[in-house]
Amino acid sequence: MKILVIGGTGTLGKAVVSVLGDNHSVITAGKTHGDFQVDITDESSVKALFARTGKLDAIISTTGSLHFGPLEEMTAEQFNTGLQDKLLGQVRIALIGKAFLNDGGSITLTSGIVADEPIRQGANATAVNAAVEGFVRAAAIELPRGIRINGVSPTVVEESLEGYGPFFPGFEAAPAARVAKAYVRSVEGAQTGRIYKVW
Amino acid sequence: MKILVIGGTGTLGKAVVSVLGDNHSVITAGKTHGDFQVDITDESSVKALFARTGKLDAIISTTGSLHFGPLEEMTAEQFNTGLQDKLLGQVRIALIGKAFLNDGGSITLTSGIVADEPIRQGANATAVNAAVEGFVRAAAIELPRGIRINGVSPTVVEESLEGYGPFFPGFEAAPAARVAKAYVRSVEGAQTGRIYKVW
Repeated sequence: MKILVIGGTGTLGKAVVSVLGDNHSVITAGKTHGDFQVDITDESSVKALFARTGKLDAIISTTGSLHFGPLEEMTAEQFNTGLQDKLLGQVRIALIGKAFLNDGGSITLTSGIVADEPIRQGANATAVNAAVEGFVRAAAIELPRGIRINGVSPTVVEESLEGYGPFFPGFEAAPAARVAKAYVRSVEGAQTGRIYKVW
Repeated sequence: MKILVIGGTGTLGKAVVSVLGDNHSVITAGKTHGDFQVDITDESSVKALFARTGKLDAIISTTGSLHFGPLEEMTAEQFNTGLQDKLLGQVRIALIGKAFLNDGGSITLTSGIVADEPIRQGANATAVNAAVEGFVRAAAIELPRGIRINGVSPTVVEESLEGYGPFFPGFEAAPAARVAKAYVRSVEGAQTGRIYKVW
């Protein structure tokens, strides 16, 4: 299969590219690195990306940023940054990318454990991740030509513990290589509208 | 209690105002009707609303619009209208309004059955409603001074069946007066971080 991994140069993305690269032709896109550059908050940038990749069998997104901060000080403007990036950015990838998928192709987006298990300073993360999962559930019933869509909800990734660990007291981390298996399950499996929880 | 119902002039809001009005002092706000006018997508409009209401014991939102339309034609821009209105609008009400709540006060937001049960043309609605519920779950663990936050997820309201019925084949509708009871449960009860499903 020809697979595009947006965010393929990040911690998790690299693990996904590594495991899929054995059996598939993988293209990576990132904000500053990878085979192609893309800004997922920019409609024309995402359109330009797909114009360059051409037809694909699978689109994977392991990207998107959130607003972290205490609820007490949070503003609607800050909250919107996560809506525009990890939520609308991934939705945009799906809405534009679906036309570039071959019949029976798949889209896999990334949410996160915080959708179900709130943490301090994580109100935006819980809302955004829950919305990504909602979009996956709903888009699955409308996609044409046998195109599937799933999500992966990772716990905190072991390789990111140094930065994010303090936000996740007592949470079990998972190595990126283990989380990456869920993306393989989504791409090579037959299910749609599923959220694969790796926790 | 002194209670503000934003959206208190809509189909559901009127039922909420009616049931709460027996035992409480209720103020209504709406886009064009009610005691006060407010545009929930506008930061300064929401700030002005609370400056005028003063201290409150409960804030209820039964408002917010979504984008409905086929996934095939949906654009990120259209998707964003629901993010800005029913999602960020309600989050803004909570973020700004919490400072105007007395100790032990409550916030009650509105999601909807589509969060869990996707329908055709409803990808934006599922994502937005799921995000509202995520925000409620997460905000509940950070609110100070005993302030609580809950959500109400109604099925399609009987009084709205003429307009929305065709989108909900086989769904059981609920009278607005029945849905309104969930708001009373949120305001007068003691739970926080709950989504009261009326379906």
